[in-house]
Amino acid sequence: MGFAAIADATRRGVLERLGRGDASISDLAARFDMTLTGMKKHVRVLEDAGLVTSAKVGRVRTCRLGPRRLEDEIAWMFDYRRMLEARLDSLGEFLARSKGDER
Amino acid sequence: MGFAAIADATRRGVLERLGRGDASISDLAARFDMTLTGMKKHVRVLEDAGLVTSAKVGRVRTCRLGPRRLEDEIAWMFDYRRMLEARLDSLGEFLARSKGDER
Repeated sequence: MGFAAIADATRRGVLERLGRGDASISDLAARFDMTLTGMKKHVRVLEDAGLVTSAKVGRVRTCRLGPRRLEDEIAWMFDYRRMLEARLDSLGEFLARSKGDER
Repeated sequence: MGFAAIADATRRGVLERLGRGDASISDLAARFDMTLTGMKKHVRVLEDAGLVTSAKVGRVRTCRLGPRRLEDEIAWMFDYRRMLEARLDSLGEFLARSKGDER
């Protein structure tokens, strides 16, 4: 699961940016007001999660979206939400109880 | 965003478990083969994210799902996926290029 990879707002921003087209580390660093070193670390985390790939040509490392598309994370979210919806009645009871009616 | 809270498999399991009904820290620890101390830490992270609430009655701390329902995270995932789908054509170009046709 790549939830840790998208737990950071900058990394989510990088994914959104790369969804609009590839970008160099320098582009990304400038866009997010970060140092090259800081942006490299974020890109590394995204690469380790399969969400981004990068390739160095000459002195420029270009980043693009990787083979993974957060499918597993989206599937988990869907399942979780479906479970919550299926248990809506029980949750209603939960809320009633948490108002102190029964405890 | 609570992606960090759900970046851990045990914490996701706790959310699923609490979706089926409230549970004490001891229940959760036993269910996930963890120490009480370890489970308390996980529950604290989930509480800080608003995903779980807990209340101590006597010596038993009972956990239930909190006011937040991962709505923001689900919304971000939807937006991200929609963006990816909207850019499917561009991504196709990406893939063609990453086969080395143009670089």
